[in-house]
Amino acid sequence: MLDHGGDLDLAQQRFAGRLEDWIDLSTGINRQPYPLPQLEPRRWGALPSRADIAQLHEAARLAYGTRAPIMALAGAQAAIQLLPRLSAPGQARILVPSYNEYAGVLRAAGWDVAEVSTLEDLAGADLAIVVNPNNPDGRRHDPADLLALASKVGRLVVDESFADAAPELSLACEAGRPGLLILRSFGKFYGLAGVRLGFGLGSDADIAALAAQAGPWPVSGPAIAIGRCALRDRDWAAATAERLGSESLRLDDLARAQGWSLVGGTALFRLYDCGDAMAAQAQLAAAQIWSRVFAGNAGWLRLGLPGDETEWTRLAAALAC
Amino acid sequence: MLDHGGDLDLAQQRFAGRLEDWIDLSTGINRQPYPLPQLEPRRWGALPSRADIAQLHEAARLAYGTRAPIMALAGAQAAIQLLPRLSAPGQARILVPSYNEYAGVLRAAGWDVAEVSTLEDLAGADLAIVVNPNNPDGRRHDPADLLALASKVGRLVVDESFADAAPELSLACEAGRPGLLILRSFGKFYGLAGVRLGFGLGSDADIAALAAQAGPWPVSGPAIAIGRCALRDRDWAAATAERLGSESLRLDDLARAQGWSLVGGTALFRLYDCGDAMAAQAQLAAAQIWSRVFAGNAGWLRLGLPGDETEWTRLAAALAC
Repeated sequence: MLDHGGDLDLAQQRFAGRLEDWIDLSTGINRQPYPLPQLEPRRWGALPSRADIAQLHEAARLAYGTRAPIMALAGAQAAIQLLPRLSAPGQARILVPSYNEYAGVLRAAGWDVAEVSTLEDLAGADLAIVVNPNNPDGRRHDPADLLALASKVGRLVVDESFADAAPELSLACEAGRPGLLILRSFGKFYGLAGVRLGFGLGSDADIAALAAQAGPWPVSGPAIAIGRCALRDRDWAAATAERLGSESLRLDDLARAQGWSLVGGTALFRLYDCGDAMAAQAQLAAAQIWSRVFAGNAGWLRLGLPGDETEWTRLAAALAC
Repeated sequence: MLDHGGDLDLAQQRFAGRLEDWIDLSTGINRQPYPLPQLEPRRWGALPSRADIAQLHEAARLAYGTRAPIMALAGAQAAIQLLPRLSAPGQARILVPSYNEYAGVLRAAGWDVAEVSTLEDLAGADLAIVVNPNNPDGRRHDPADLLALASKVGRLVVDESFADAAPELSLACEAGRPGLLILRSFGKFYGLAGVRLGFGLGSDADIAALAAQAGPWPVSGPAIAIGRCALRDRDWAAATAERLGSESLRLDDLARAQGWSLVGGTALFRLYDCGDAMAAQAQLAAAQIWSRVFAGNAGWLRLGLPGDETEWTRLAAALAC
């Protein structure tokens, strides 16, 4: 398994403390989750029905502002696992630095994978991958530029796992065009990553192919019920986007006082250059706060947002040590 | 999507009634589910950790009586979806009649699929599929015969989705041998099909290949917590196996009084020849009881077991109409 952040038990093994005492800021998962709705017994007991799944899809279309063909999967990660099978292996290009699963999954399935650093370098690929806004550096791409790119590649995958709080970046409304596939994550913005829910939005052919590969019932009954309820709640989404936006600036203030410089970020995480990231990670871990470092860049530390005032206070105290 | 039973909303559309008034006997899912344990917030909010998954695997090994390499997936179906990728496409043979997903999934992935009617006819296949005990006819195979067969095929997959109440049939204790892959379902016996949980047990190489194809986090946090708790509860499993065993005989008595003959079954479902299965299905559906018919056999009706005395009474009344 690649390094992803979020594996708090490894932090606990290295730095001690009880698991429940740790604050996990190593991911970009919202720590003020959507309140769980009451779940009917049939959500646990019965296989999800076609009607259940159709209702979830409608809620997701509402949230993402699209009428495109859509398919619920067990997280955006589940869509990534199926990507290599949407066409015969060829050349894939990934705009990096970015989420590290793409390269591994594609190479394992026989794709030739090139990592490139500009959008222009993606042109000509059989399969091009862009995360927008990007993880871990928050880099943003104009949807018009991505649409223009789509016509120059075999298939363009836009991973919008962190786009809930930046809807102006989303190409979901353009999904349905041949050769454009949008991936969405449910668990990050809604703070419910354990539920395992995400979506693919794309052409009829691509969505049918994803559905055939995933098989019946790829998503649990509770995930369907929770996802439907949360995705229809546009008031919660708007309030949460606003809260995360202002709290990410609060985190930047703390980091600046530390002498760290902002590399970039989204409303769900921030990436700082703090000179010696391993030392900064160890300093926070001594106070049972977990963060993410990157093998490729010794200065980079990624932090998610604390969930409440108690967590903000602990973070400020840990940084003041 | 193939016909599977369990799609109660289709029954409701055809025969009316409110969804919550229907008794779904069209599947082999236990209608007295394992009581849900309290779920900590982190099960919903956080990504499952390696330690969480390892504990689930240990519980499953305990339940299935094995020390073999194991991999949790989102239902036995999720393992079926990955089967075609464990080796290059060749000739697959499936002992039929059986679960209809195997042939479709393998053919879609380029396998040459033959359906055969005796165990002996499986010998020589690159990939052989046996469901034990079988769905829908309850046919049982001696584990020794299956072990002997394993040495005569490239890979033998034994689907033990209905073996929880018949542990004497299980080859889980032999899993780990190269070329033998066992699939287990959690949701049927534990009555929690909506949770989406199942397991593959096999050689190190096969389990590593399944894990690579499935990617990180294929199973939800709640599924991990519930599965771990339920699979460790061997008292509940023993009591449930006994209850299901005696209640399946009770169902046979009802059917016999109807003039139906038992084709076979497991502790979770029974298959009857009732002459005109469509008429029998319609008779039960008029009382909002859903059952399963089979395109290939006009006489066959499959019934799961009612969950409580109210349901038994409604079934008896519907049959008496």
